[in-house]
Amino acid sequence: MDERVRRHAEILVDHCTDIAAEDDVLIRAPTPAEDLVVALHERIGEVGACPSLSWLNSRAGRAYARAMDADDFRLNEPRLAAMEETDVVIMVTGATNAFETSDVDPGKSAAASRANGPILEERLDTRWVITQHPTPADAQQAEMSTEAWEAFVYDAVNRDWDAQRAFQERMVEILDPAEEVRIVSGDATDVTLSVDGMAAANDYAKENLPGGEVYTSPVPDGVDGEVTFDLPVVRNGREVEGATLRFEDGEVVDHGAEKNGDVLTSVLETDEGARRVGELGIGMNRGIDEFSYNMLFDEKMGDTVHLALGKAIEECVPEGREFNDSAVHVDMLVDMSEDSRIEVDGEVVQRNGTFAFEGSETE
Amino acid sequence: MDERVRRHAEILVDHCTDIAAEDDVLIRAPTPAEDLVVALHERIGEVGACPSLSWLNSRAGRAYARAMDADDFRLNEPRLAAMEETDVVIMVTGATNAFETSDVDPGKSAAASRANGPILEERLDTRWVITQHPTPADAQQAEMSTEAWEAFVYDAVNRDWDAQRAFQERMVEILDPAEEVRIVSGDATDVTLSVDGMAAANDYAKENLPGGEVYTSPVPDGVDGEVTFDLPVVRNGREVEGATLRFEDGEVVDHGAEKNGDVLTSVLETDEGARRVGELGIGMNRGIDEFSYNMLFDEKMGDTVHLALGKAIEECVPEGREFNDSAVHVDMLVDMSEDSRIEVDGEVVQRNGTFAFEGSETE
Repeated sequence: MDERVRRHAEILVDHCTDIAAEDDVLIRAPTPAEDLVVALHERIGEVGACPSLSWLNSRAGRAYARAMDADDFRLNEPRLAAMEETDVVIMVTGATNAFETSDVDPGKSAAASRANGPILEERLDTRWVITQHPTPADAQQAEMSTEAWEAFVYDAVNRDWDAQRAFQERMVEILDPAEEVRIVSGDATDVTLSVDGMAAANDYAKENLPGGEVYTSPVPDGVDGEVTFDLPVVRNGREVEGATLRFEDGEVVDHGAEKNGDVLTSVLETDEGARRVGELGIGMNRGIDEFSYNMLFDEKMGDTVHLALGKAIEECVPEGREFNDSAVHVDMLVDMSEDSRIEVDGEVVQRNGTFAFEGSETE
Repeated sequence: MDERVRRHAEILVDHCTDIAAEDDVLIRAPTPAEDLVVALHERIGEVGACPSLSWLNSRAGRAYARAMDADDFRLNEPRLAAMEETDVVIMVTGATNAFETSDVDPGKSAAASRANGPILEERLDTRWVITQHPTPADAQQAEMSTEAWEAFVYDAVNRDWDAQRAFQERMVEILDPAEEVRIVSGDATDVTLSVDGMAAANDYAKENLPGGEVYTSPVPDGVDGEVTFDLPVVRNGREVEGATLRFEDGEVVDHGAEKNGDVLTSVLETDEGARRVGELGIGMNRGIDEFSYNMLFDEKMGDTVHLALGKAIEECVPEGREFNDSAVHVDMLVDMSEDSRIEVDGEVVQRNGTFAFEGSETE
């Protein structure tokens, strides 16, 4: 077995979910992730914990959904009962065919999700993590060779997460007490976000592997200026390219795109909250240096920032402060590697991708 | 998809387990059975029931067992909780490598089974069935090409089970009230078994697919004579060929074999009950016409009978009658296709594989 798979499994078991002998662990994984499943069982056995293995099979899911009447989906009671007894959930993604469920009525998928809402709630009470096993189909989605995609995934996930945490903590220490953040990139992006009183959080790969961002939620009416997003936004299989947003008092007052602007319009029309920013994220995982059409990776890419239209992040919004609620949370990225800077309360903390606190110490 | 797979799935859902909309169904299946898993989900969706999919992965099971300390296996509480909410269990076998767990300490496998005994008990309270999906590795075990093995499996499982049930019921009607059965084959087999007061049962594929036998448990001290078993007995990967047993008052008083006789000796030495016959079975599935080294199929082969050393069958032994108990239940087959007959209470009911009640009607 590829030693990178074993390392990935160790990080999932030891770092992300901190599994001990007394834990009951659910692994949910698709067929092509078999090597990672084997490596996880080996590590979980070494720890002495107790695993269950659920097979994510998109062909089976598609066949079931197509055969079902939309009204007949109901809560899966055995899965709920099992989840109530589960301490840790490791969710592995990895497609055999990224479009396997493309001919399933989205209404049926939504009905199934609604029916199983209580299982999701129980799962959120466990120590859970989502990760990715590299497959040829996902390489194809990323427009990479399989070998290049494998290297990309393992560069992103197989990191020294204690060092990464410490690196990111420097940014948390700056952002957490800050009042205002300004993002400038080229001529097209100059936006100011109030983060006054909002908490900043460090994603060092506890719930997402890869992790690698520092994030907060801006004050809902505290965003002003213009942003051009350098990297495409993918929604329901369609790519919005060259999206631009203009904000006044937190609200999007103008928008446009070079391609598929109607997709962006429909996002903005979802609800009131979809026209405001729910998240400001700063990508700090330098193992990720390429856009991959996969938000698990893209939002952590080094030398990027992202704004999300829509729902804010609960842990970042203190009690008593306005929380921007929405049915959507759409991350959109700005490349900060050239002719760009992040200012916090008037001080430049990052220029062209390099943080001011770098250089004086190792990452 | 191969239409034989869809037919297999329909028989499992409609005939074997009689699934209805209100049922929660657990499917346990290995990687190479994906097509059957998909077909099962399609049929379960048509019925409107609710499936869960557990991944039987022998590589993962091996890795876990080897990494665990034998003393550390404990009851899998989430699996037990799920089983308590489950109505139907469909267990699919099908190897990727039939020897995948050959380097796992058998003591660990036993420890895992003991720890999960309560899950087995709960499962036996569901409507359960065991079946087989044809794989190249199992074809290899059967010493057949993959295509021949597929044909073999589907000939055995994709049958008109109502017609098969009616065919077998003719034999049940003869065996159930009978007092004595005599099996004669060539010069080497002539054995008489008392079945006085014992119940005969019809296996028409409710718990095993393929089904296809009529069986009873003889009176423990009511077996006399000699049997030579034409077909090899496989125990722990070793084949006993040309096994012979001589019975007096139900007990094996002499035994031998052309090859690996020590394996037979160790079976007989397991316990007191291992030296008596726990089952007499009559194979009636004529879709199975070849020995395949797989007891799920072999014991149902048309034109065979089998005796099992060891544990009797509960449903065949009425209250108050002696029950032959043992830790083992080892099926051993006699070919009845030539120079052979089955007599029941002195009347010949089968000669050279043809039943006396055949010919007057269609099977």
